Amino acid sequence: MDDDMESGGNMAAFNVRQRTFPSMKNKPYTPLIFRIFMGVNVRVMFFLFLLGLGAIFYIGASTSPIIVFVFSICIISFLFSLYLTKWVLAKDEGPPEMVEISDAIRDGAEGFFRTQYGTISKMSILLALVILSIYLFRSTTPQQESSGIGRSTSAFITVAAFLLGALCSGIAGYVGMWVSVRANVRVASAARRSAREALQIAIRAGGLSAIIVVGMAVIGVAILYATFFVWLGVDSSDSMKVTDLPLLLVGYGFGASFVALFAQLGGGIYTKAADVGADLVGKIEQGIPEDDPRNPAVIADLVGDNVGDCAARGADLFESIAAEIISAMILGGTMAQRCKIEDPSGFILFPLVVHSFDLVVSSVGILSIRGTRDSGAKNPIEDPMAILEKGYSVTILLAVLTFGASTRWLLYTEQAPTAWLNFALCGLVGIMTAYVFVWITKYYTDYKHEPVRTLALSSTTGHGTNIIAGISLGLESTALPVLVISASIISAFWLGRTSGLVDEAGNPTGGLFGTAVATMGMLSTAAYVLTMDMFGPIADNAGGIVEMSQQPESVREITDVLDAVGNTTKATTKGFAIGSAALASFLLFSAYMDEVASFAHTSFKEVDIAIPEVFVGGLLGSMLIFLFSAWACSAVGRTAQEVVNEVRRQFIERPGIMDYQEKPDYGRCVSIVASASLREMIKPGALAIISPMAIGILFRILGHFTGHPLLGAKVVASMLMFATVSGILMALFLNTSGGAWDNAKKYIETGALGGKGSDCHKAAITGDTVGDPFKDTAGPSLHVLIKMLATITLVMAPVFL
Amino acid sequence: MDDDMESGGNMAAFNVRQRTFPSMKNKPYTPLIFRIFMGVNVRVMFFLFLLGLGAIFYIGASTSPIIVFVFSICIISFLFSLYLTKWVLAKDEGPPEMVEISDAIRDGAEGFFRTQYGTISKMSILLALVILSIYLFRSTTPQQESSGIGRSTSAFITVAAFLLGALCSGIAGYVGMWVSVRANVRVASAARRSAREALQIAIRAGGLSAIIVVGMAVIGVAILYATFFVWLGVDSSDSMKVTDLPLLLVGYGFGASFVALFAQLGGGIYTKAADVGADLVGKIEQGIPEDDPRNPAVIADLVGDNVGDCAARGADLFESIAAEIISAMILGGTMAQRCKIEDPSGFILFPLVVHSFDLVVSSVGILSIRGTRDSGAKNPIEDPMAILEKGYSVTILLAVLTFGASTRWLLYTEQAPTAWLNFALCGLVGIMTAYVFVWITKYYTDYKHEPVRTLALSSTTGHGTNIIAGISLGLESTALPVLVISASIISAFWLGRTSGLVDEAGNPTGGLFGTAVATMGMLSTAAYVLTMDMFGPIADNAGGIVEMSQQPESVREITDVLDAVGNTTKATTKGFAIGSAALASFLLFSAYMDEVASFAHTSFKEVDIAIPEVFVGGLLGSMLIFLFSAWACSAVGRTAQEVVNEVRRQFIERPGIMDYQEKPDYGRCVSIVASASLREMIKPGALAIISPMAIGILFRILGHFTGHPLLGAKVVASMLMFATVSGILMALFLNTSGGAWDNAKKYIETGALGGKGSDCHKAAITGDTVGDPFKDTAGPSLHVLIKMLATITLVMAPVFL
Repeated sequence: MDDDMESGGNMAAFNVRQRTFPSMKNKPYTPLIFRIFMGVNVRVMFFLFLLGLGAIFYIGASTSPIIVFVFSICIISFLFSLYLTKWVLAKDEGPPEMVEISDAIRDGAEGFFRTQYGTISKMSILLALVILSIYLFRSTTPQQESSGIGRSTSAFITVAAFLLGALCSGIAGYVGMWVSVRANVRVASAARRSAREALQIAIRAGGLSAIIVVGMAVIGVAILYATFFVWLGVDSSDSMKVTDLPLLLVGYGFGASFVALFAQLGGGIYTKAADVGADLVGKIEQGIPEDDPRNPAVIADLVGDNVGDCAARGADLFESIAAEIISAMILGGTMAQRCKIEDPSGFILFPLVVHSFDLVVSSVGILSIRGTRDSGAKNPIEDPMAILEKGYSVTILLAVLTFGASTRWLLYTEQAPTAWLNFALCGLVGIMTAYVFVWITKYYTDYKHEPVRTLALSSTTGHGTNIIAGISLGLESTALPVLVISASIISAFWLGRTSGLVDEAGNPTGGLFGTAVATMGMLSTAAYVLTMDMFGPIADNAGGIVEMSQQPESVREITDVLDAVGNTTKATTKGFAIGSAALASFLLFSAYMDEVASFAHTSFKEVDIAIPEVFVGGLLGSMLIFLFSAWACSAVGRTAQEVVNEVRRQFIERPGIMDYQEKPDYGRCVSIVASASLREMIKPGALAIISPMAIGILFRILGHFTGHPLLGAKVVASMLMFATVSGILMALFLNTSGGAWDNAKKYIETGALGGKGSDCHKAAITGDTVGDPFKDTAGPSLHVLIKMLATITLVMAPVFL
Repeated sequence: MDDDMESGGNMAAFNVRQRTFPSMKNKPYTPLIFRIFMGVNVRVMFFLFLLGLGAIFYIGASTSPIIVFVFSICIISFLFSLYLTKWVLAKDEGPPEMVEISDAIRDGAEGFFRTQYGTISKMSILLALVILSIYLFRSTTPQQESSGIGRSTSAFITVAAFLLGALCSGIAGYVGMWVSVRANVRVASAARRSAREALQIAIRAGGLSAIIVVGMAVIGVAILYATFFVWLGVDSSDSMKVTDLPLLLVGYGFGASFVALFAQLGGGIYTKAADVGADLVGKIEQGIPEDDPRNPAVIADLVGDNVGDCAARGADLFESIAAEIISAMILGGTMAQRCKIEDPSGFILFPLVVHSFDLVVSSVGILSIRGTRDSGAKNPIEDPMAILEKGYSVTILLAVLTFGASTRWLLYTEQAPTAWLNFALCGLVGIMTAYVFVWITKYYTDYKHEPVRTLALSSTTGHGTNIIAGISLGLESTALPVLVISASIISAFWLGRTSGLVDEAGNPTGGLFGTAVATMGMLSTAAYVLTMDMFGPIADNAGGIVEMSQQPESVREITDVLDAVGNTTKATTKGFAIGSAALASFLLFSAYMDEVASFAHTSFKEVDIAIPEVFVGGLLGSMLIFLFSAWACSAVGRTAQEVVNEVRRQFIERPGIMDYQEKPDYGRCVSIVASASLREMIKPGALAIISPMAIGILFRILGHFTGHPLLGAKVVASMLMFATVSGILMALFLNTSGGAWDNAKKYIETGALGGKGSDCHKAAITGDTVGDPFKDTAGPSLHVLIKMLATITLVMAPVFL
């Protein structure tokens, strides 16, 4: 594809790339794996992919028919995404000036991606070695002993799972970016013809990467599960029980969340530093519009959308789904074992089936958005939000039906004939929670509603009151989601408990699994939600390309509408992500308790916060969230200042920029932001990885000297819980206040309260600037952090004992 | 005193009060208790006070010689504060223009105080009735049954303690305000002569109210203890044990924190709404200096310092000390009982003695600050911070000595001869924690250090980066205090545990008491710290009076220096208050666990966060903190907007104000702020009071229907813990970022980075505005909230079972 685009470039008018991105093109170091990916033709790659699938299909068939079903759905989905790819790429790229801008964006994005993932892959290998050495010196569980899994086997299994998770997460991120840098120009071009067509391209491009991301999470777990099943000879006599198998998969989740954390941090710092820097000088000081070609930081800003939103959100949702599947499999296995269910595979594989159906129903939802409605091409612009919501309704409706069918198929057991019905209701609780979460986020961030209007009004009294109002709005917006999450945890737990599943002693055991099923229900439309999310940055980028290539006003209007909708969908996805993170962490916490008990050969059922050390663990956990957010925000602030200084310098040194006489040096801004964000992502990332390990080991030693057994494990558990709770609240606060500031500004730009250029608008821009790192760097990084903490404690549990 | 001032007023030049405060003077409703207080001559009141003391002295003598010692010290301290009062009031009030401004401030402050405490007293009586009815239907402990304390006795005891606590807290607040509205003008007047004299007056005025506040907390608890001791015939056969007595005092702590919460909320909203409103229009829009007489909101701002800082901080520290004394008494009693110590009164009364010594050593510290150093009156201005710190060093040194002596005197027991030494070390840990906390706060908020300078630098790139940097600074500043608190909790617990005190089964029991002793150590210089804190608003007010009465530049310089020091001491006191709140809440939590166990006739030792409902309780607890902070901040924002609109209206309607041709209507601003802040304090206050009760009762019912005993109590415990942890972090964040923004602005005003009037300065003012409600409304209210939650759960525990 590269060649096509380059030959199409007419370099006369606006020769951006050749002059401004030399540093990105000649990066000396590119990791081998990316060189291979970049080198191989897309079709050859896909063929190899299919060949590999065929091989593991055989393994799947030896495991369970359910696995075969999952494989089949995934492969069909990949074929479907191949169709979408061809469909999107077949669209025209518009006039040469658009192509050139798009090429510049693509080069910037791919250059950053390569360097960033180069760093991440090195860190992953380092961490893999650490895990290997820890596992080689760890103790094994009695079950493992009896099944003949020695230390070295379990070490290699964990490390292999970790590396596979990291690799898949990297691919998920790459696909997200690959699609968006190609779709942006096509959406921009289509916007010259029809709003509806532009919308359809953006949706299908988003859908394509969403399906690959979700499909990869599902098939990755399925492959690992089937491979271990066959390799370890599970369920033959003397070997491992199938109910213990899911615990071997935690490495996969950890690998995924490890990569997602750095992807989100690096990408989030990149996108917001460029955005804030560009806005501060461009909008506020010079008074030029957003995405104006005179602004030297504008290409960096557009690159940021791709690496920060597309790539990072892909990695984020990938690890959400992977972690959620694995924790639900662990809990399903534990429960099936306690209840002595004859064939536990239904309970264990249930999450894989739910997400397979997710692929199907989301595909239907994506296809339900048609390119043309009735006759002509140039209809008046419809509300794209309404179109997207119609698709969402179709998806949700189908998801309810397929979810019910899956529970009847897999969770029916003779022992408790009506249990599947209870679990179906749990799923419904989850789906409703997702819906309510999306609604609450919209209420707090959409300017059709009271809160954002009040925020906009507070801008009339100045910068200060705008910030105070935004912060209180964000803090207040945590209340309703917490109430909803609380209600759904308790009701799903209660539905599970009363399902009729009992253990040998007659105690009801289905509670936690009920919560797990609710989480699956919440995520049962993940692919469609991710599609809506990916739509945002693609539309944003298309708008930037339209603005920079100086298209007529009518084209800009179309992309502006799409961009505004994209902002809302981005905000709602974050609500969705944090809700599912809250539920998933509670599951992972329970899995952690089970794992510690199994390693310590003793009961480990409670974490008692009345013990001073455990209370201290909680304090440290919450503090970790505050410190992480601080470092993420200040990284953006620092990098943005570098951008501001550079842009100011260019405006002074090249006074002709403002009259279009001189061309700004876009490339310098891109490389400044890229190197700064790579540098800045290390500190918060390392904090998140190292502190749980440090706390666990420290208190293990303290416990050893004060004669307090399992102190390390207890303190880590309490740290995890407090960090989860604080993290949920902090992420809600950061996401919502950021979104609300953004839309309060947009509301004023519609002409309210003085409109563009008024003092009120300036105050609103300040709020938007503050909100940028909140909602796109610190907030989303916290989603990942919460689950990363849960998976790292699962993997590292043996060190804390 | 009123008459003196009024006759001294020369109404010609600057007739502020008569015209502008009619609404405050003719308030129709004044509660009886205040009418009595206001009516009675100071000397008569003091005589009655002494008479009352004489009566209870007799009761004290029948209880324990330690109580007599405590009484004596308190009475001597009150006499000392009487001396300080006379000394301060003997100072001249300066020229008539100063007196008039001061009178206007005093009327505004007293008017607000009356209305505010009228509302609070009505709410207290309502709540007292609720408590009474709850206690009349509660169950009693077996100990109480056996000692013949029936339901109605225990109900009346709790309600009486609650009302006494509320009353004392009200008096503490009133004294704080009474002193500051009289001292401000005397400091302003003295500043015309000598910086040193002004400093000394401010210090002695602060010291006088600090001693009364601390003394009242101590003597209140001592009186209640002695009265109950004699009345219930404790320790005679068949009656109550002395070790159970402290549990009867919890009502006192709850009453104190209830009043402190509303005092802090109302006062905090008042002071910051006036400040923010005055700054937004005055400084930013009109470009006139702070405290300029042309600003219509300036009197409201000055009134705010008195009601928000002096009255509220007095009530805050009063309840800190009361809650800490009571929780330590409970823990001391429990431990003494477990260890079967023969005479437990030493362990129980230890906190009273520590705080009695606090009064003595702080008085010495206050006196150590002399009015004149060597010869002349007009020395070059010394650094007042150095002088204050010298006094603090004297106090700390003496506190270490007296603390050691008290442990040897009261905590020596034959059973474990070296235990007192361990506890003395615990106290040292506490004193060091206080010292380190003060140091950390200074590091993050003083512009001599890196963080504030970086923050100031980030203002050069605009409003947005200033806010981002301030928020990250605040979030980051939570890390070190948490590490220090964690280390001190663990080390004090360990010192207590290894003290050699063991229960019947030979288990070490002194751990929690060790933490309690560390808390006492931390608070062992409370009176001096409170003095430094009170010094701040008095100096601030004096500066305002000097500015408004248009004194020469040299006088302003002196008050500016004092004001800047006051800002630092205010910030450090908040660090101190939050550190002690963290420790005290942990103690109150343990007391709550003990109380539930004793009511439920069952062991209640652990709060297991792996139970979904308990986890949900934690989520709700943390959410409570976020919501409370949101409402506190938005209350300030809303009220400030009203002020802004009023000030803008006055500037438009009276264009002569700017040329000193017309006089602004100060009174209207005062009454707008007063009524708005009374209205706004209700919502967050009600949230804090009602939600723990609602959560407890809701989950009690849920537990009843799902067959889960004690669910209500467990959920409340977890809510309390998570709220405490989140509250500590949030308060640290809010206080530090607010202080840092304030000082970054001050740093720029010294001429750095462009100095006054530059764009950088404007950005810094925005930060300061945002920080105002953080550091003076939401932050300090959280200190109180944390302890209020702990005391309300203690008092309401029977409802949750």
